Amino acid sequence: MREAEHGRVSDLRSDTLTRPTPAMREAMLDAEVGDDVYAEDPTVAALEERVADLLGHEAALFMPTGSMANQIGLRLHAGPGQEIISDHLAHVLRAELGAAAAYSGITTRSWVADRGRLDVDTALAVMVPDGGAYQVSTACVVVENTHNFGGGTIQPVEQMRLLREGTAQVGVGVHLDGARLWNAHVATGTPLADYGACADTVSVCLSKGLGAPVGSVLAASAEQIGQARILRKRMGGGMRQVGLLAAAGRYALEHQLERLAEDHRRTARVARAVGEAAPDVLDPDDVQTNILVLDVAAAGWGAGDFIGAAGERGVLGYPTDARHARFAWHLDIDDAMTEHALDVLLDLLAPGRGGASS
Amino acid sequence: MREAEHGRVSDLRSDTLTRPTPAMREAMLDAEVGDDVYAEDPTVAALEERVADLLGHEAALFMPTGSMANQIGLRLHAGPGQEIISDHLAHVLRAELGAAAAYSGITTRSWVADRGRLDVDTALAVMVPDGGAYQVSTACVVVENTHNFGGGTIQPVEQMRLLREGTAQVGVGVHLDGARLWNAHVATGTPLADYGACADTVSVCLSKGLGAPVGSVLAASAEQIGQARILRKRMGGGMRQVGLLAAAGRYALEHQLERLAEDHRRTARVARAVGEAAPDVLDPDDVQTNILVLDVAAAGWGAGDFIGAAGERGVLGYPTDARHARFAWHLDIDDAMTEHALDVLLDLLAPGRGGASS
Amino acid sequence: MREAEHGRVSDLRSDTLTRPTPAMREAMLDAEVGDDVYAEDPTVAALEERVADLLGHEAALFMPTGSMANQIGLRLHAGPGQEIISDHLAHVLRAELGAAAAYSGITTRSWVADRGRLDVDTALAVMVPDGGAYQVSTACVVVENTHNFGGGTIQPVEQMRLLREGTAQVGVGVHLDGARLWNAHVATGTPLADYGACADTVSVCLSKGLGAPVGSVLAASAEQIGQARILRKRMGGGMRQVGLLAAAGRYALEHQLERLAEDHRRTARVARAVGEAAPDVLDPDDVQTNILVLDVAAAGWGAGDFIGAAGERGVLGYPTDARHARFAWHLDIDDAMTEHALDVLLDLLAPGRGGASS
Amino acid sequence: MREAEHGRVSDLRSDTLTRPTPAMREAMLDAEVGDDVYAEDPTVAALEERVADLLGHEAALFMPTGSMANQIGLRLHAGPGQEIISDHLAHVLRAELGAAAAYSGITTRSWVADRGRLDVDTALAVMVPDGGAYQVSTACVVVENTHNFGGGTIQPVEQMRLLREGTAQVGVGVHLDGARLWNAHVATGTPLADYGACADTVSVCLSKGLGAPVGSVLAASAEQIGQARILRKRMGGGMRQVGLLAAAGRYALEHQLERLAEDHRRTARVARAVGEAAPDVLDPDDVQTNILVLDVAAAGWGAGDFIGAAGERGVLGYPTDARHARFAWHLDIDDAMTEHALDVLLDLLAPGRGGASS
Repeated sequence: MREAEHGRVSDLRSDTLTRPTPAMREAMLDAEVGDDVYAEDPTVAALEERVADLLGHEAALFMPTGSMANQIGLRLHAGPGQEIISDHLAHVLRAELGAAAAYSGITTRSWVADRGRLDVDTALAVMVPDGGAYQVSTACVVVENTHNFGGGTIQPVEQMRLLREGTAQVGVGVHLDGARLWNAHVATGTPLADYGACADTVSVCLSKGLGAPVGSVLAASAEQIGQARILRKRMGGGMRQVGLLAAAGRYALEHQLERLAEDHRRTARVARAVGEAAPDVLDPDDVQTNILVLDVAAAGWGAGDFIGAAGERGVLGYPTDARHARFAWHLDIDDAMTEHALDVLLDLLAPGRGGASS
Repeated sequence: MREAEHGRVSDLRSDTLTRPTPAMREAMLDAEVGDDVYAEDPTVAALEERVADLLGHEAALFMPTGSMANQIGLRLHAGPGQEIISDHLAHVLRAELGAAAAYSGITTRSWVADRGRLDVDTALAVMVPDGGAYQVSTACVVVENTHNFGGGTIQPVEQMRLLREGTAQVGVGVHLDGARLWNAHVATGTPLADYGACADTVSVCLSKGLGAPVGSVLAASAEQIGQARILRKRMGGGMRQVGLLAAAGRYALEHQLERLAEDHRRTARVARAVGEAAPDVLDPDDVQTNILVLDVAAAGWGAGDFIGAAGERGVLGYPTDARHARFAWHLDIDDAMTEHALDVLLDLLAPGRGGASS
Repeated sequence: MREAEHGRVSDLRSDTLTRPTPAMREAMLDAEVGDDVYAEDPTVAALEERVADLLGHEAALFMPTGSMANQIGLRLHAGPGQEIISDHLAHVLRAELGAAAAYSGITTRSWVADRGRLDVDTALAVMVPDGGAYQVSTACVVVENTHNFGGGTIQPVEQMRLLREGTAQVGVGVHLDGARLWNAHVATGTPLADYGACADTVSVCLSKGLGAPVGSVLAASAEQIGQARILRKRMGGGMRQVGLLAAAGRYALEHQLERLAEDHRRTARVARAVGEAAPDVLDPDDVQTNILVLDVAAAGWGAGDFIGAAGERGVLGYPTDARHARFAWHLDIDDAMTEHALDVLLDLLAPGRGGASS
Repeated sequence: MREAEHGRVSDLRSDTLTRPTPAMREAMLDAEVGDDVYAEDPTVAALEERVADLLGHEAALFMPTGSMANQIGLRLHAGPGQEIISDHLAHVLRAELGAAAAYSGITTRSWVADRGRLDVDTALAVMVPDGGAYQVSTACVVVENTHNFGGGTIQPVEQMRLLREGTAQVGVGVHLDGARLWNAHVATGTPLADYGACADTVSVCLSKGLGAPVGSVLAASAEQIGQARILRKRMGGGMRQVGLLAAAGRYALEHQLERLAEDHRRTARVARAVGEAAPDVLDPDDVQTNILVLDVAAAGWGAGDFIGAAGERGVLGYPTDARHARFAWHLDIDDAMTEHALDVLLDLLAPGRGGASS
């Protein structure tokens, strides 16, 4: 196989795979640190303040992972037996191992959403603001922007405002899972604070498109962040001289945010070409940021087989379910790798290939 | 007001309101009992065996309430971090105070279902049989038959069989919340065991339409019932000489099952008349058993106001949400009370009345 | 074997085994009932008021079991991550299947207590009233009176008052597990309300020595009982026309409370005789109410073997651990059965017998 | 105040305060990394292998904190409603915010232990290996070595072996909270693997005495570590390019382990002098490693006041409860700081000083 000969690998399994650059490592080398359990790490404090400002919130807290940022965010809204609702593909429901129920006793309901698109009317119809003493009450609606399993779908800020109004009237909160909010911001030009204004709690991730090695940040009110600090300790996320990691996050925010446009450009290039060649597999208009979700079943492939075949030719992806394969662009994928990936995808999706594999 | 003069009250808030008849009390008086925590109560054992037989399952266990029967049934399928899915109005999600999450750590997702009708295709599409190590896996689908908040909706046994096949192929279980399965059975003539064959675990309730004062029964395999016995103790449901209640349940099964047809006849009579007078409020074809859910908002009423106005005239109901009012027929409602209720409903739903109240 | 020939069985496994008398059943036959989930059962309400009065508390709530009464009582004091402490043999820690942790997330610590005797100094030393943000704080101390696994040990009201003072000063609560508080009251003459005054929440059981078939009652403030009503629904303990059981409880309180003295007299008779014959096995001064815990290991027996050998001769008991056998007197054990039990115990504890069995 | 003038601060609040040295930071700069959620970070893998080897276990897993390492270790032994026991001052019970109960539903009991010393007989007496269907069973005993709140107490390996034998016979597990196991090893010369052989699961901490900025490691069997990897993801501990931190941990193990002897020497120096001056406050024989716990109440001080007074003079400590003040030696405390601390402590503990402050 051509690719095997050349040893080229385009690792598009996830945008979590990015490695810290030498410049980012230098920033870590010089970071001033302290014991962050005692809130004495100056680099962490500076990062938290920066993110809170960007999102227009009072305060923020560094977290080891996006899952912990989301789960503690949810816990600020709801306790055991209270309800949180979202679309049925939300990361908090699908990819955090049931932590909201397992650790916080939070009960959840969902509605089916095409490509994860926010559907305000349905969200408001499913919500039960006050169930009384004997029925479940909804404490919070979760919005994921951009939407991972939906394929990098951007939730328009106008929709988020409508949701915010509809929920605020009846005292229901909003959590924004903004692991990839940077991508929505760069793609649309909408200020981060405009998104931030549509939610009580916001999580953002430093280790996906931004390219920091580790870390997420939860933004909320100062009072909520005080509670979050205790919950973080209980969850085992109270780390010590973690300013080393925060330094990487600060560097990423300053130097690697705008370049997400490059990821979007490359993803769009592949989307257009694949959509033209195999319109049943992908509608290029659905591809809005750095994630490509292909309905490979429409081309006769099982998702696992497809990922396997692409992997043999040096293009690594991820099967999100039995019929869909996901490819994510990020800092470590350049134009040449993009062309390589496109070649392989087009070849595998050529008529008759999927059938051949089954 | 005419009704106030006569002091008549038709209490249609719920079919849980039925009071034990003198004959049922006599059955309790004579019951042989023992300590059921030690599985030594012969009347309980006889009831459990009878219910298991009716449903075609190996074994069964008496429970203080339908909520406990459901929650322990779910726990037999899933533990902390595992998933159970159902329609968004299911009693297990809406009306059991989040117990699956709060007590068992079970995470849940749902799809929006009109009148609670089982939608097999959507259920199978939402289900994720094997999420791998890092995503949530679906352990069980819940079907509620008849569907309470859906308005007494019958789930056809053919649909349940399709669900059973689709889930069994991939190793996912089915729990049947059959609190009102008796109503489905009496209305359709489908044997209880045919419904029972479509689920691994089934809960049935003795204290709703059947008219026993207290108790539900969970049916499952003998091994599962062994586990359920321990879980029942942990939940505080291990009662002692409870054969007194089981005797009422046995009496109800023998003497008060077929008479559910009377409830259905009376509910249908009201449904036809209301549907003719106020077609926006109710489609009589939606009324299949003993529950009437009126879209009183379509007649200009808020649900709370409507229930209040009906109550002042001696007809008691229950607002299931801001726009719907529920009325349930049962053992203690006769033809005269039915006519009384119909008069009051028609009067309140007459054109212009709802507007007047707001 | 002599006993087998006669078919006599003295069932001393537990005082939960009592069966309702004909007069109690008659009281149930006539009970007025309603739907207790809606707080509309007059017989339940009367029982709750009676128990609240006896214990000197504002309000009370009927529960299906003592375990649920205790567990909801604990939940009124503490939520997830908060702490409750007690002696290491407490029923709430040993015999309720870990429900406080499993269902309420309550963390627990204990101290070793000889025969379950309340040790106020140790309790206060273990307690941490205010652990700050990063350490666990103690919300409540549990006292069990009489103490089941301790062998029916009475906690003197003076000790309970000292605990009450020591905890109240620092804002820590007290829960009294009074499943057998009736026995302490009858044995000492201390008014129930004097015990009740030493705790914020009190559970009492109707189905042990009192002889009702099912039920416990939790007493507390009116506000706490309001919360308990919701928690009871979540735990699956919201039963319907449960006045039938409450009627038995009311009958028991009126007619079967003082007769606990008979159980104590019979237990003391056996204790004196066994203690004289086998002083290593039992110090009769330790036997204060209706429970006998024998250190059968001191006579060379394993507890399981001893219970087995006694059972073959018609005397049923319960092994509380590898070296202790428990026998409990109750309503269904008369003088003849007591003599029979004594004969068998003395015979088995005669020198050399234990060794012979191993 | 003299110290204030000089601006000297001896920060003995905790050995978690250590800051990474320049050489350690260089090691981080060069670390090869990958996505550790996919188990693709070579530096993490090397650290895990090294720790597993040191402790004589099959496998190991990097964790963001010692709390997560402990809590996941406990979860490998027990699930909801199962029991773990330990002394009443154990870090897992006192200082991890009730996580075992709150997140894993694990119920706990304890015994009172002077200075946290392992008491094998009591541990075995409290343990209930098989509680049957209706009582709690003990899954695991926790040993903390050295014992933090006990004052750095070393648990002798002979005692640990006895516990191991007594528990293994009846199928009960052992978890070793070895956050400061390095200190026990350096102080006694006992090989780490000898301690490791006494437990099924072992946590060790890189960010206390060893001086790495962040991280702990859990060692266990390969199968258990596979489960732990999933649990770590659910707890929000699945970090990405975390080899940067692992590099610091590897450096610490290689270069900063033996120097713990320096901390012990300095702590002993202070202990001898304080013990001589104020024998009621401290028995120097109790001080075995790097932690000094002073009974300042014996000198008439409240712990909070004492810590405050010392802090004003530049010696920072931590009140472990109302009467005890803790001081911990570590990498960033040299001989001069030690002398400074000793001067201040002696001055504050001089006769009459405590009384003066209250």
